[in-house]
Amino acid sequence: MTVLYHAPLSPFCRKVRLTLSEKRIDTDLQEERYWEKSPDFLRRNPLGKVPVLRIDGLVMSESQAICEYLEDVYPTPSLLPTDPRERYEVRRIVGYFDDTFHREVTVKVLGERITKKLTGAGYPDSRLVKEGVTRIKVHLDYMAHLLDHRRWLAGDVMTLADFAAAAQLSVLDYSSDVDWHRQPGVKDWYAKIKSRPAFRGLLADQVVGFPPPPHYADLDF
Amino acid sequence: MTVLYHAPLSPFCRKVRLTLSEKRIDTDLQEERYWEKSPDFLRRNPLGKVPVLRIDGLVMSESQAICEYLEDVYPTPSLLPTDPRERYEVRRIVGYFDDTFHREVTVKVLGERITKKLTGAGYPDSRLVKEGVTRIKVHLDYMAHLLDHRRWLAGDVMTLADFAAAAQLSVLDYSSDVDWHRQPGVKDWYAKIKSRPAFRGLLADQVVGFPPPPHYADLDF
Repeated sequence: MTVLYHAPLSPFCRKVRLTLSEKRIDTDLQEERYWEKSPDFLRRNPLGKVPVLRIDGLVMSESQAICEYLEDVYPTPSLLPTDPRERYEVRRIVGYFDDTFHREVTVKVLGERITKKLTGAGYPDSRLVKEGVTRIKVHLDYMAHLLDHRRWLAGDVMTLADFAAAAQLSVLDYSSDVDWHRQPGVKDWYAKIKSRPAFRGLLADQVVGFPPPPHYADLDF
Repeated sequence: MTVLYHAPLSPFCRKVRLTLSEKRIDTDLQEERYWEKSPDFLRRNPLGKVPVLRIDGLVMSESQAICEYLEDVYPTPSLLPTDPRERYEVRRIVGYFDDTFHREVTVKVLGERITKKLTGAGYPDSRLVKEGVTRIKVHLDYMAHLLDHRRWLAGDVMTLADFAAAAQLSVLDYSSDVDWHRQPGVKDWYAKIKSRPAFRGLLADQVVGFPPPPHYADLDF
């Protein structure tokens, strides 16, 4: 049985969940309180990070390495094109969301507002929250610029790039931190990806003490 | 002509430089004062990050997307195995160095000590430097654990994983922040990679105001 050790509001876990689900790989989800660093969990990943995926007799970590493995071994449906230039563009956008977007927005907004309280790491730093809230605008505008001449973020088909972006935006939407009115093109794209069967699990997530807003699971938001 | 816009002490630029050089792709290196955000540079990469690679009529960013593209289009010599499990292991280690190692060590040590001064971002925070200096020990021990039963970090052949790791360690070695006595296995591995022709350019780097220690370019360190 394939098992994913995850945290509901981790965008990296969500990227892997979307990929597993889109590829119809039946997976048992185990919620991991990774900040408690239980001996069992540290045995699975000494770095103490989620996601950790148990599949094909392997225990895997690092979300992008996991997604590339799933693409190599479970190629249908494909989430990475075959043309090297198109593959590059997908990986560029994945890197942009996993690194820059996450660091400039998700860590500052969700990390300060929710993760800190959840993990007992102290009180939010309002200066950082404000920086993140300002910065997300630039990134929504950049997404709109990409979507202006493409159906999906990296081109005309849905790829890992869309999952990497939707993973970050969906956790920020859980804390009502995405202004969907700013860029109608980005809202249309999110509505399209939100209505996919692979997204259902994410929309059912509930974190105790932090209920999502009503629009979070609404396909017509 | 292939052009790489880079900063000498950026580990991500170094990972790409090693890959280009190992694949014998003749490249013109242009040093970029990325923190000055010149209009020309922002046109090449609106995010204002290095490396930026101009190749095959494309302007590319995001170091890992660049390395995967180079592997797709210039497969000789190969830096990524063909077996999916081995590919996973390479990408896991690349992710580990690009993300965790960089965030826990390089940003705190080199970022505080050198990058801050270089870019005019203020004075080093000695608490962060201390955290990084403590944390590198854990990572050197983990590398020793990997190298205990492998010739290279991800297996028996040299791969992108070795370049990702050597890129981080080489910038820390530039500021004398690697204790090579701690793990002889790691020192042997670094001696091996340091003696490759692809490494020569890195060893010739000089940052004005921050001369490297004598052992930095010494193959017999």
